[in-house]
Amino acid sequence: MRYPGTICALTGTQYPLIQGGMAWVSDASLAAAVSMAGGLGVIAAGNAPPDWVERQVTELRAKTDKPFGLNVMLLSPYVAQVAELAADLHVPVVITGAGNPDAYVKRWKAAGCLVAPVVASRALAMLMERMGADFVIAEGCEAGGHIGELTSMVLWPDIARSVSIPVVAAGGVFDASGVAAAFCLGAKGVQVGTRFILAEECTAHEAYKERVLRAKDIDSKVTGRITGHPVRVLRSPLQRELATAEYGPDGAAAVEKLGEGSLMRAVLHGDKDRGSFMAGQCACMMDRIQPAEAIVRELFDAELIVRALSGASAMLEANE
Amino acid sequence: MRYPGTICALTGTQYPLIQGGMAWVSDASLAAAVSMAGGLGVIAAGNAPPDWVERQVTELRAKTDKPFGLNVMLLSPYVAQVAELAADLHVPVVITGAGNPDAYVKRWKAAGCLVAPVVASRALAMLMERMGADFVIAEGCEAGGHIGELTSMVLWPDIARSVSIPVVAAGGVFDASGVAAAFCLGAKGVQVGTRFILAEECTAHEAYKERVLRAKDIDSKVTGRITGHPVRVLRSPLQRELATAEYGPDGAAAVEKLGEGSLMRAVLHGDKDRGSFMAGQCACMMDRIQPAEAIVRELFDAELIVRALSGASAMLEANE
Repeated sequence: MRYPGTICALTGTQYPLIQGGMAWVSDASLAAAVSMAGGLGVIAAGNAPPDWVERQVTELRAKTDKPFGLNVMLLSPYVAQVAELAADLHVPVVITGAGNPDAYVKRWKAAGCLVAPVVASRALAMLMERMGADFVIAEGCEAGGHIGELTSMVLWPDIARSVSIPVVAAGGVFDASGVAAAFCLGAKGVQVGTRFILAEECTAHEAYKERVLRAKDIDSKVTGRITGHPVRVLRSPLQRELATAEYGPDGAAAVEKLGEGSLMRAVLHGDKDRGSFMAGQCACMMDRIQPAEAIVRELFDAELIVRALSGASAMLEANE
Repeated sequence: MRYPGTICALTGTQYPLIQGGMAWVSDASLAAAVSMAGGLGVIAAGNAPPDWVERQVTELRAKTDKPFGLNVMLLSPYVAQVAELAADLHVPVVITGAGNPDAYVKRWKAAGCLVAPVVASRALAMLMERMGADFVIAEGCEAGGHIGELTSMVLWPDIARSVSIPVVAAGGVFDASGVAAAFCLGAKGVQVGTRFILAEECTAHEAYKERVLRAKDIDSKVTGRITGHPVRVLRSPLQRELATAEYGPDGAAAVEKLGEGSLMRAVLHGDKDRGSFMAGQCACMMDRIQPAEAIVRELFDAELIVRALSGASAMLEANE
């Protein structure tokens, strides 16, 4: 299959699919596997120092010459260096999260990078378009990790009607019928995060993958609303502590302190007690670990996408 | 058009469309208008006493003999009497909200009512199926008023794969492309609330309608999470007070006290300071007051639904 009218024309990927940039989870191993499978693999810089980021990019390029992305987290203490590195390395697609990348866009564009900010509101999407973004990734609050307020069903069409650059749908997309729905709502591609935690090539700790596998629908919780930077995680001892701390005497400060380093503890060490197991709400529907290639193939199984669309069409029948 | 395979076969309506039961907003005037337009108009009992409910049903039946629904709010102080009344009046469809209607289902079924609970989790949906519900309304947290945790993009497919009775998609549906997306995700009908606040026949105060009309995407807020019964409202002076009270010394108790009667103050009196303006996130995309019939016609504009589906199809092209 080809995907005319989608972001493939920009990204040069086989599928209009971006793998979500998940701090610590999205390293060269996962990103290379997704890129080789025809999606846009993405390395997440997170809070990591530039030498870690450079190693990941080098490692990915040793495995494949397919296009890939680097997710630059704008709140990172190393953001300026990582931003410069992205330009120096001519990373094909720079994806930005957690803010306004204004300071770096010109440098990236001059280096030939595509720029694709993750947005959670209309105003930011419109600002990004004016700033020269090539496309935006509209991420609904069903996504894992740091989230905004609006859900995908509202955010996607709202952004799609507010900007003329392509919109990639993120948050709650995990299968072919979700791809069909996203296309119906005006998206020109999808970003999928949580499902790739369960890729064989994902190096996250086994305990992290197990937590995602056994997630129930009611296990998805948001912590840290009081800090102004809410985070979606799966239920855990730390999450319960955070939920209590949020309403406790020290509020935001206590939450920040508990959260510090908790994602790394979960992803790298599988720390069930002190780790934050970030995942999207759709974790409740995941039931297997698969090669990244199988995940990509199932997401874009043309038969399944067509079945969703034609099933919908079949519910409309002209009167005789 | 006909809508084979949808809830129309059960409800006997022209369109697979349910008007959301919004306390104080969904009275006989709105419900009759929607039913006459071919959807399932719904009277919301809310916390109202049975004589008010009976008057509304009588008034609706004086206007139309089309099918309609009654939304029974299970936390109402009058719930037992309203439940009995629904059976006595042989209300065509009883929709339940805010809990488990176990105690009343047999009585309603015996009276020939269809029973359709609003659900926000897999477990409740499955329980409702076992209890004999005719269909369920899966409502994502982008909806207005009392909400659950899961968004529509996750809840709809999760419920659709968990029960074999039809699933009606609620939360974030406001136009024809949303109907197309809901169908793609396995829904057999949609429930639309917020957009009907802006029906000409809706008797809500002008100030309430104006607040919905000028809602921005960032105006949608959730209050009362600390009480365990979160409510989605639009930004307002009372909402700001509630947000502060939630983290204050009296927590849940203060929130309950501030919230008491606040919806009625907004809907009936347009009280901008002390009213709760409940609305879904999609309010940000609403820009006009229309007759209910025009809203129904636009939601099920076959050309627009087909355009969304065929636009999505066009993004898949077999390789030559």
